[in-house]
Amino acid sequence: MNHYPDPIVKLIHSLSKLPGIGKKTAERLALHILHAPDQDAAVLAADILDLKTSVRLCETCFALSDKEQCRICSDPARDPSIICVVENPTDMAAIEKSNSFSGTYHILGGALSPIDGVGPGDIRLMELFKRAALDQTKEIIIATKTNVEGEATASYIVDKLKEIPVTITRIASGIPMGGDLQYIDTLTMQKAMEKRYGF
Amino acid sequence: MNHYPDPIVKLIHSLSKLPGIGKKTAERLALHILHAPDQDAAVLAADILDLKTSVRLCETCFALSDKEQCRICSDPARDPSIICVVENPTDMAAIEKSNSFSGTYHILGGALSPIDGVGPGDIRLMELFKRAALDQTKEIIIATKTNVEGEATASYIVDKLKEIPVTITRIASGIPMGGDLQYIDTLTMQKAMEKRYGF
Repeated sequence: MNHYPDPIVKLIHSLSKLPGIGKKTAERLALHILHAPDQDAAVLAADILDLKTSVRLCETCFALSDKEQCRICSDPARDPSIICVVENPTDMAAIEKSNSFSGTYHILGGALSPIDGVGPGDIRLMELFKRAALDQTKEIIIATKTNVEGEATASYIVDKLKEIPVTITRIASGIPMGGDLQYIDTLTMQKAMEKRYGF
Repeated sequence: MNHYPDPIVKLIHSLSKLPGIGKKTAERLALHILHAPDQDAAVLAADILDLKTSVRLCETCFALSDKEQCRICSDPARDPSIICVVENPTDMAAIEKSNSFSGTYHILGGALSPIDGVGPGDIRLMELFKRAALDQTKEIIIATKTNVEGEATASYIVDKLKEIPVTITRIASGIPMGGDLQYIDTLTMQKAMEKRYGF
């Protein structure tokens, strides 16, 4: 990389710290930025700085936000009586993209994982239990991942909320739409059979 | 993408303008930057701006540089009597990485391509001919690409320099090292046979 002048080498180094960006890609990106309009580079740099200064967590649901309340929590069209619990903002974004939910969210910031030293105090469970205990709350939809940690987190939440008069549900697991049965793993197939429903 | 607050959406938009970075990758990078240390993001933004302000072209060879003379042209260990002609800085970087050349370079900034409207006046040929005519210049190595445009550019240079007492050479074409003959294209094979050498 030291076949380029220092400013290019430095940018290549900085870019290659990003996930999935190796030295080769960083070199290509840096040379692109070098030849791109000054305005584009200035905007990119400003956007990076702006992101770090202006993004915070929603005080209610802990989603990424640029205000005290996120776009969803402050939207009167969203139903605050239904709370969908997810592990992180990307899971929330995936549900939002599906346009299948009009309630609000609660972002845990992870899942229980004793092996990795993540206990109930390390994710936002207390905050969830407080929201679940509010009079307005009618349903908690648990949309943690369907792996071991996500299932353990779901069980923990169900156990802790059993005294509270709130409906608790779990998003469905099964064969993905368009999925070929031949390539489905055993666990998913077992779940799909177990959760089969009538017409 | 509008499931994220504005600063994230803006950065995703800026990042997805980079080559090979789609919406999905831009989203992943933006979220990485969001969670990366403030210092890293600040350095990345500063490097982008610094690149645009401090990189210019070497006055002698037109390589990317942060000074009037690039690292190579100002290095007394490099032989200025041998000039390697390349199309662009990445080609030069490829040769430098190979550690096989101790002379200097001349970056044309492209190759002749009448179809794309690139004529002799559009790349740095006049500057090359001036350098070739200097007393100190002994050899011009033409390392343009081995495609139609690169070969045409090489022929043009050879033709224009035939009156000047300078040795003109072309980098060798042939089977790549470790290349399986079975998968070599016909043109490369023809070139490899034509340019065969004795021991």
